[in-house]
Amino acid sequence: MRFAKGHGTGNDFLILPDPDGTLSLSAGVAASLCDRHTGLGADGILRAVRVPAAGPAIPAAGLAAAGWFMDYRNADGSIAEMCGNGIRVFARYLLGRGLAEGPELTVATRAGLRHVREEPDGEITVDMGDPAVLGRSVASIGSLRQEGLAVSLGNPHLACVVSRPVAEFDLSSPPLVDQERFPQGANVELVRVLGDRRVEMRVYERGSGATLSCGTGAVAAAVAAAAAAAAAAGGPGGPVPGAGACGGIDERACPAGSWTVLVPGGTLTVTLTGLTSLLTGPAVIVAEGELDKAWLAGLPGAVPAIA
Amino acid sequence: MRFAKGHGTGNDFLILPDPDGTLSLSAGVAASLCDRHTGLGADGILRAVRVPAAGPAIPAAGLAAAGWFMDYRNADGSIAEMCGNGIRVFARYLLGRGLAEGPELTVATRAGLRHVREEPDGEITVDMGDPAVLGRSVASIGSLRQEGLAVSLGNPHLACVVSRPVAEFDLSSPPLVDQERFPQGANVELVRVLGDRRVEMRVYERGSGATLSCGTGAVAAAVAAAAAAAAAAGGPGGPVPGAGACGGIDERACPAGSWTVLVPGGTLTVTLTGLTSLLTGPAVIVAEGELDKAWLAGLPGAVPAIA
Repeated sequence: MRFAKGHGTGNDFLILPDPDGTLSLSAGVAASLCDRHTGLGADGILRAVRVPAAGPAIPAAGLAAAGWFMDYRNADGSIAEMCGNGIRVFARYLLGRGLAEGPELTVATRAGLRHVREEPDGEITVDMGDPAVLGRSVASIGSLRQEGLAVSLGNPHLACVVSRPVAEFDLSSPPLVDQERFPQGANVELVRVLGDRRVEMRVYERGSGATLSCGTGAVAAAVAAAAAAAAAAGGPGGPVPGAGACGGIDERACPAGSWTVLVPGGTLTVTLTGLTSLLTGPAVIVAEGELDKAWLAGLPGAVPAIA
Repeated sequence: MRFAKGHGTGNDFLILPDPDGTLSLSAGVAASLCDRHTGLGADGILRAVRVPAAGPAIPAAGLAAAGWFMDYRNADGSIAEMCGNGIRVFARYLLGRGLAEGPELTVATRAGLRHVREEPDGEITVDMGDPAVLGRSVASIGSLRQEGLAVSLGNPHLACVVSRPVAEFDLSSPPLVDQERFPQGANVELVRVLGDRRVEMRVYERGSGATLSCGTGAVAAAVAAAAAAAAAAGGPGGPVPGAGACGGIDERACPAGSWTVLVPGGTLTVTLTGLTSLLTGPAVIVAEGELDKAWLAGLPGAVPAIA
């Protein structure tokens, strides 16, 4: 089994090229691959399958436009619909190996088609879709209660605009969120505005903990910062004194513009167009190789799992 | 640049085959390779150089006996003399690729020659040398004061025989050791005897934190458990009531026998012969491949570092 390893702002992935869709990857094998000590180690796995071979995992509509299906797995082996940094690394791999033509390509994911573009400076942009602003909510972060904006990018976020440096918050244990608002839990972002359309962000990802970067989290952070800026400027609905960083604005307001989002693993750019959101940043391939046959054969459940 | 990744009981390493010694590995590049998110990720690097090409890094005496030099680097890029789990993975790589003949081989390290053997069941044994028992000392582990036995395997250890399950101790911050006894700090082991010559161990490694396994730590744990057993049985010098787990024994005593050492990453066997110590356990290669040229070229200091 061939692999490549790459990362986008410190979010790292194993790419498993499987053009003919012959690789049946069990959750156990995926988790073994992602183990950082006894496997290769990664935040997730990107299996690359040519669309005609992808089978029923992907929706039929518009598939002709996409050459490749990105089968994404979390580090615990579970399936997820999409991953913003992952798809940027996926595109870097396809473009770098001549497996897709750039600078624009369309990738099929479980969340639907995603449009990706290689920028002239080599960074990779993905269209993340229209962020859905759902209202205000409150998280408990350590001993603090922090108000934030609930935003969905397919996955749920609570993006909290704060005034202290984000490094000062304790993310060693999961923030607690409102279970009625977030029955499946939420990713929680701490966002501090550093200057004109420039923020720093830390994120606690559901099931993963504090990570170096999170693509959908960066978009949610930009949305919350944009909403707070609109509120401070007396935007739609006008600010409500005392209602917190996101207080009182029309929560559907999502002022257009580009935001620089500093995450622990690097720098991302989020562009809000009013219709959709674009995530831009570096995507890097570190190495390529072959998994050891004896090691693979020794994994629990490996024999039936590896076709 | 080719690489392999492997591990021994969860202690993981990148092997860089460099038979002709042409690879000049800077500390920065080594640390970049070991970064678990933006590199490949490992506890350390094992550069494999044929002895005639190894140059002045290794002592001349007896080198004719060794085919390969193991150039070991820690994850921060610094040089270390030896690594018990690392040399077992190193031997697995050489034997598995037909680069050395087994089942016995001699490897040159900065600590001198080390004898390694592949066992009939596939586990790998390394002769770790004679443990030097240096006396008793005390560590502060969280809010606890814990007495232990100071043991040197080339590197310093304080192995503390405890009565509570080792999982209950807080190793989230470094234990404090006696600076006069350990001017360079020490690795601290918690060792609980589970039964006849069977212990569980957790270790806090200087500079690395709580790790899944530590070869020299496993030997130190077996020495401390053996000394405690000898003391309890009224061994040389006889036990001194109230002096703690290692109290009152002749600290040079090191009763012969094999000990099973359960570490978080697996199971090791330590055999104390009275003259030397043998460390036996699994050693696994996970994958092999090639580092991406563009990634390497972009590393700080990479251009002069990669010959």
